[in-house]
Amino acid sequence: MGLEVVLGIDIGGTFTKFGLVDKSGEIHFEDEISTREHATVEQFIAAFFQHLTNRLDQLDTVFHIKGIGVGAPNGNYYSGSIENPPNLAWKGKIEFVKLMEDQFHIPTVVTNDANAAALGEMLFGDARGLSNFIMITLGTGLGSGLVVNGDIVYGNDGFAGELGHVRAVDNGRECGCGKRGCLETYVSATGIKRTIFELLSEENVESEFRNIPFSKLKPKRITAMAESGDPIAIKAFERTGFLLGRSLADSVAHISPAKIFLFGGLAKAGKWIIDPTKKSMEEHLLPIYRNKIDIVPSALLKKNIAVLGAAALIWKKLDRNRES
Amino acid sequence: MGLEVVLGIDIGGTFTKFGLVDKSGEIHFEDEISTREHATVEQFIAAFFQHLTNRLDQLDTVFHIKGIGVGAPNGNYYSGSIENPPNLAWKGKIEFVKLMEDQFHIPTVVTNDANAAALGEMLFGDARGLSNFIMITLGTGLGSGLVVNGDIVYGNDGFAGELGHVRAVDNGRECGCGKRGCLETYVSATGIKRTIFELLSEENVESEFRNIPFSKLKPKRITAMAESGDPIAIKAFERTGFLLGRSLADSVAHISPAKIFLFGGLAKAGKWIIDPTKKSMEEHLLPIYRNKIDIVPSALLKKNIAVLGAAALIWKKLDRNRES
Repeated sequence: MGLEVVLGIDIGGTFTKFGLVDKSGEIHFEDEISTREHATVEQFIAAFFQHLTNRLDQLDTVFHIKGIGVGAPNGNYYSGSIENPPNLAWKGKIEFVKLMEDQFHIPTVVTNDANAAALGEMLFGDARGLSNFIMITLGTGLGSGLVVNGDIVYGNDGFAGELGHVRAVDNGRECGCGKRGCLETYVSATGIKRTIFELLSEENVESEFRNIPFSKLKPKRITAMAESGDPIAIKAFERTGFLLGRSLADSVAHISPAKIFLFGGLAKAGKWIIDPTKKSMEEHLLPIYRNKIDIVPSALLKKNIAVLGAAALIWKKLDRNRES
Repeated sequence: MGLEVVLGIDIGGTFTKFGLVDKSGEIHFEDEISTREHATVEQFIAAFFQHLTNRLDQLDTVFHIKGIGVGAPNGNYYSGSIENPPNLAWKGKIEFVKLMEDQFHIPTVVTNDANAAALGEMLFGDARGLSNFIMITLGTGLGSGLVVNGDIVYGNDGFAGELGHVRAVDNGRECGCGKRGCLETYVSATGIKRTIFELLSEENVESEFRNIPFSKLKPKRITAMAESGDPIAIKAFERTGFLLGRSLADSVAHISPAKIFLFGGLAKAGKWIIDPTKKSMEEHLLPIYRNKIDIVPSALLKKNIAVLGAAALIWKKLDRNRES
């Protein structure tokens, strides 16, 4: 038999991370392979299968892998496909679940990375017991997972929860999606970087940022600079939080969540991002919603929430199948 | 025994409409009483009870009223209360369900009028079979009922679905809620009226509207004027639809509905409001959502959807109680 686990996979533009996760959320084995190196999805799946079986053969523990959960950009829970993923080299509509099941012969389910993160928080983090909450993932872009009545909101087509593309600023910054002013062009690792350079253009104040070219600025640096009192860094967090809080006020008017969780590199900035976001959200909320909703960092901030979330996705599905 | 029906009640600022509705959605009796005349909710309920029993005594049919469903501004499904209703004379937190059950001794349930309308469409209208849709009610204000995975979205506190108060315009028109730029200050019977007067201030074009004072303009008139080619009326619908469509694009990014229904006086304007709304929504949608979502008038536009919806609310609850 072996130890019962599922395989959680987080497909990112550069790396694909994965782990074997038991039902309590413990990760028994984790590793990663390159996503970018494989030009086609078929090559990627073949290489991934080879790599995983080699690694598992070297381990002392015997695992019984009951299913595979996948978080991927534009992953669609209903169709099992990944459709035109924005940051991957693979184009078109990829029948990911089918290809994986053909290779692995175990039940596979896919969703987008932010929905996976929301499920991870719900099964293994601080959203346990909450029926209505929002997960915001702040990476290169802004992803979101909405939970209503205890279930992920997939919507009619499986693509619900794209808060990165709500209108934050009229005719604002150019977005990769073809629109302008989308929330993620301001609120994300890339977004706050753009805001740093916007501020350098507007203000005369001295700042170390004046010595760093756009292409070299790492978002992590912005938090360090805020800590050391850099006025541009502090102001960048204020602007970012203002826009995030203002948009979240509108999200609250939709689903009225109990809590909002932040995950990702920018969420690690802690109070620098959370305080201005809270302040702005409260200012923009309809009075009936005020002083009710907490914005907190994910409890899994230091763990691999994407892998845990992908694992949660398939554990949830396996449980449901058993019940029905 | 008598014919099995429920009592559906729609509490509005001026009138309270009600009807006896059977399980197929047929209204067997309907009537209305004044809301405004009764200074306290206790007086209102006593008068309503008196009025209803008098009327039912005069009828030939004997009804067996199994339950009462109520749609009311700020009606809260969870708590059974009406909290600080914006358009009613009754203030504070009113324990409406308790007061009604004390008087009528039958199960009573309350929600807001827009949620009731969504339920009406789901049980008796064109949303039958849809698991994810949005109902927008365009009356004095803009109300909304969101349906996700086949259930109304009540949210953590019972107050979800206030799309009338999302940010339509930065620092825009003054709203009754205390904020500025809320969607309902532009998109509602009152909103389009304000737009007419905005246009009269901006443009020099001849229009019959120049002879009508603000206090006398009836929204119904605006549709008639658009039909007769009045350029201000036509432009007012375009602006209204532009803002509604732009906001709906953001709502789609939240819950990705199969359809969006419009109800209320302004929805009766048909193509005048629907065409510019569709056009604008498509323009502002994230590409993955384009050409998927229909915006249509409610199938119950000519019926009393609010009474039917309130009836649907209690029928749904009675069914659930029987199942569990």
